[in-house]
Amino acid sequence: MGLSIRRTISLMPATALAVSLGFGAPAAHAQDNPTSAGPADPELILDLIAANKTLAAHGIVDAYGHVSVRHNLDSSRFLMAAARAPAIVTEADIIEYTLDGVPVDLRGRSQYSERFIHAEIYKARPDVISVVHNHSPSVIPFGISDVPIKPVYHMSAFIGEGLPIYDIRDESGMTNMLVNNPVKGGALAAELGDATAVLMRGHGVAVTGASIPFAVARSIYLEVNAAIQLQAIGLGGSITYLDPAEASEVLEAGENRGYDRPWELWRRDALGQ
Amino acid sequence: MGLSIRRTISLMPATALAVSLGFGAPAAHAQDNPTSAGPADPELILDLIAANKTLAAHGIVDAYGHVSVRHNLDSSRFLMAAARAPAIVTEADIIEYTLDGVPVDLRGRSQYSERFIHAEIYKARPDVISVVHNHSPSVIPFGISDVPIKPVYHMSAFIGEGLPIYDIRDESGMTNMLVNNPVKGGALAAELGDATAVLMRGHGVAVTGASIPFAVARSIYLEVNAAIQLQAIGLGGSITYLDPAEASEVLEAGENRGYDRPWELWRRDALGQ
Amino acid sequence: MGLSIRRTISLMPATALAVSLGFGAPAAHAQDNPTSAGPADPELILDLIAANKTLAAHGIVDAYGHVSVRHNLDSSRFLMAAARAPAIVTEADIIEYTLDGVPVDLRGRSQYSERFIHAEIYKARPDVISVVHNHSPSVIPFGISDVPIKPVYHMSAFIGEGLPIYDIRDESGMTNMLVNNPVKGGALAAELGDATAVLMRGHGVAVTGASIPFAVARSIYLEVNAAIQLQAIGLGGSITYLDPAEASEVLEAGENRGYDRPWELWRRDALGQ
Amino acid sequence: MGLSIRRTISLMPATALAVSLGFGAPAAHAQDNPTSAGPADPELILDLIAANKTLAAHGIVDAYGHVSVRHNLDSSRFLMAAARAPAIVTEADIIEYTLDGVPVDLRGRSQYSERFIHAEIYKARPDVISVVHNHSPSVIPFGISDVPIKPVYHMSAFIGEGLPIYDIRDESGMTNMLVNNPVKGGALAAELGDATAVLMRGHGVAVTGASIPFAVARSIYLEVNAAIQLQAIGLGGSITYLDPAEASEVLEAGENRGYDRPWELWRRDALGQ
Repeated sequence: MGLSIRRTISLMPATALAVSLGFGAPAAHAQDNPTSAGPADPELILDLIAANKTLAAHGIVDAYGHVSVRHNLDSSRFLMAAARAPAIVTEADIIEYTLDGVPVDLRGRSQYSERFIHAEIYKARPDVISVVHNHSPSVIPFGISDVPIKPVYHMSAFIGEGLPIYDIRDESGMTNMLVNNPVKGGALAAELGDATAVLMRGHGVAVTGASIPFAVARSIYLEVNAAIQLQAIGLGGSITYLDPAEASEVLEAGENRGYDRPWELWRRDALGQ
Repeated sequence: MGLSIRRTISLMPATALAVSLGFGAPAAHAQDNPTSAGPADPELILDLIAANKTLAAHGIVDAYGHVSVRHNLDSSRFLMAAARAPAIVTEADIIEYTLDGVPVDLRGRSQYSERFIHAEIYKARPDVISVVHNHSPSVIPFGISDVPIKPVYHMSAFIGEGLPIYDIRDESGMTNMLVNNPVKGGALAAELGDATAVLMRGHGVAVTGASIPFAVARSIYLEVNAAIQLQAIGLGGSITYLDPAEASEVLEAGENRGYDRPWELWRRDALGQ
Repeated sequence: MGLSIRRTISLMPATALAVSLGFGAPAAHAQDNPTSAGPADPELILDLIAANKTLAAHGIVDAYGHVSVRHNLDSSRFLMAAARAPAIVTEADIIEYTLDGVPVDLRGRSQYSERFIHAEIYKARPDVISVVHNHSPSVIPFGISDVPIKPVYHMSAFIGEGLPIYDIRDESGMTNMLVNNPVKGGALAAELGDATAVLMRGHGVAVTGASIPFAVARSIYLEVNAAIQLQAIGLGGSITYLDPAEASEVLEAGENRGYDRPWELWRRDALGQ
Repeated sequence: MGLSIRRTISLMPATALAVSLGFGAPAAHAQDNPTSAGPADPELILDLIAANKTLAAHGIVDAYGHVSVRHNLDSSRFLMAAARAPAIVTEADIIEYTLDGVPVDLRGRSQYSERFIHAEIYKARPDVISVVHNHSPSVIPFGISDVPIKPVYHMSAFIGEGLPIYDIRDESGMTNMLVNNPVKGGALAAELGDATAVLMRGHGVAVTGASIPFAVARSIYLEVNAAIQLQAIGLGGSITYLDPAEASEVLEAGENRGYDRPWELWRRDALGQ
């Protein structure tokens, strides 16, 4: 697949066009079988598998939760595992999706019902290249409490002045809590706005990044921040959180050196290389 | 053992009949040596061993605690390990029990003195196929505090509007805290009612499920929920628990996809397959 | 070493006599080289090594802390490792001590400076066969707070109505906190009284048992109880601890079946057998 | 490299002289390529690698954080890994630095931008032989709260009457929080004063020692102390911390026997020997 073809596709993909016009039609796509953007970069696939295993190894996901990445050949496609526990995902589990959450070539594999979290965030946020959805334990309290999450140190500067909270009841009433269609995914993406992550009341969080390492590292340090903040609040004194200007400085300086250092470690541990 | 025989047995087992008439007579059964329902499905035995090891690997049980499953050929029999640490249970440790807690063929193996938790729950609740008893650490506080356990997220929707608490003192006064006879087991089962689990004051919890994966997964997510709720309360703000209607929706939608995803992972980790 | 010899020694050991008369003279003993009670039961040595490794594996000891057992041939001798991290103790590290804390045959090995915790408890408490000293993390708060430790469940019934706290300042003023002579050890043993364990302010705890499994299991469940009680208190409601009569019933019934079940597991894990 | 040469260098190193005169000139040094003090003791290098792995294994550092040691041949040089995760540092990663944070022979390796924490502490504190910088989770709350850290037991006596807190805003205003130049490093070292460690607001901590084992062990026990103090405060009662006179006695007595015992264990675990 040559560079010129890739460019054409990524500038004006049929799916993205339909979406921009408000005609996202998952059912039709499912029947039509959307065309593939072609084989993704094998290194990207390995990164995606490493991300699955890293999140599991750090307790950010257990058997639930998922991570995705935009296709390197087409920004209107993303890649995500079939509905298996992230710890045991292999290359054969990786499914290509349109931004409507329609699989390109399902081959009988089971799908994450919440793929619309990913699809709708990719639609709404062209800057996002990777998305993680998880239920990491220390983050849950901040999604159900009126005490806001705040950055306790530079490693979690991406929290900025706090994170929005998506409450599925606001647009969907009483549900089984799953973001299992484009409407719910769209409402979630709207609540996310231009933040790095959005807490989900009674559920978990969706975390974004400009690459797989960013989305994975932010997921991990969001959990660490939450655990530390819980402890700091438990001390009972007054707390000095990171100043918003300090948080901005951290991000402008490259945000923890782009997480290159942990990613070298995590990928190596995950892939046994 | 043919299907017709199984049906006859499961519709009108001698033991269940005696119990329903109030003549449960463990001593007599012990002398009579109850007949076996026949060899259980080997896959069910493997599931039961995997359940033992999974609960140990997740810190839900240590050397104490146990898990059982109804016999697949006879609903008036259940299978449970001999009195060993769950982490080291093997097929040779699996004992078949009547619903009076009488072993079919003990062969000198040591018995869990609290097998009556299982026996009496199976008697009282035909819908229950598997039972776990454990002392998982974050759950204990909710059994001794007047602060009720509540579901913090969809993964623990089975908590519903809370869980009943069994206090052994209510029917037995000062004891060694063990549910070591049918009277105590019956009182526990009565307190359980139609809930998914019952906390045990100063002791632990009994968790039920419509299959081994349900009972195991609920045991794990009950512990996770308790740990998260403890942290959420520690934040000091107001908390929004799962709405009862949301909890119902989760259960009606299949309760976390039937826990198929974690079970694939856990069984594989437990059995090394 | 015949039974009659053992009896003579254990009824009237020179060391114990000296101590009972108030003439405990470690220096003199060190010069005199006390005679050995003979080789201990090899299974007891293996149990002692397993105890060292089990306590380390459970985080009850790190590189500090120690466990001892009375010599099976002479109640006026006890066995304890040389001053190494418990995780790496081997048979060659086991030193035989008198109840004055004098080594029988040191052979250049380094000694725990706090062997007097063990020696003086053995002197004061003929019923004690094994002693653990540790700094397990959740127990420390209860030794420095005016909030008393209490049993949250049957597994820690040995806490009874609470545990005494030894404050080294009471008899020794400002020190380096170490119980490194018979006077401090004696004061600790006096504070212990007939309890199962004594907390040590700003330091740790000394735990006793009628066997190695009892001392090890109580050390582990004391830590678990402390961690659970910390959480229960964090809930902010009122707490129902184990009733003293219930605690007594648990102990009279054999205290968690004599910890046979965990000991089978722990020894196997520790010794790789 | 003979002893006489080493002495000359360490008494009057060109770099240290420049610094003492206020002419620290990293840029010039970078161009001049400072001369090496010669190959360090291979055992010291192994200790440094073991320190990296031990800190990672104990969760004191994750992919971030670093440990250094003064060169054994020249007190105006120190050794520290290239900018990699401590868990995977090897001998080839060890870089020799001047006390201005200038590498002697970089060979294209990436540098920790916060090497100035180490450099400036070595400049200011001739007694310090090893420095650890980390973000260990339980310590962070005490750097952002007005509740001071205090020693809960003898293992953390090095905390003394508390630890200073360095706030980068005091001298540098709004920053990316990194101590990435000599001015910030100097302000940190000034705040450290003659303490054993200095908390860093919204960031982490810098810990010193008279040897690698001291700096590593203090880092570990500082985290343990913080976690225990958090729990003790959570009990809600009054707390008796180590008396300053007791803390002094512990240090004067050799501070936990010089941490020889944990170091034997940790080095062995880290190096697989």
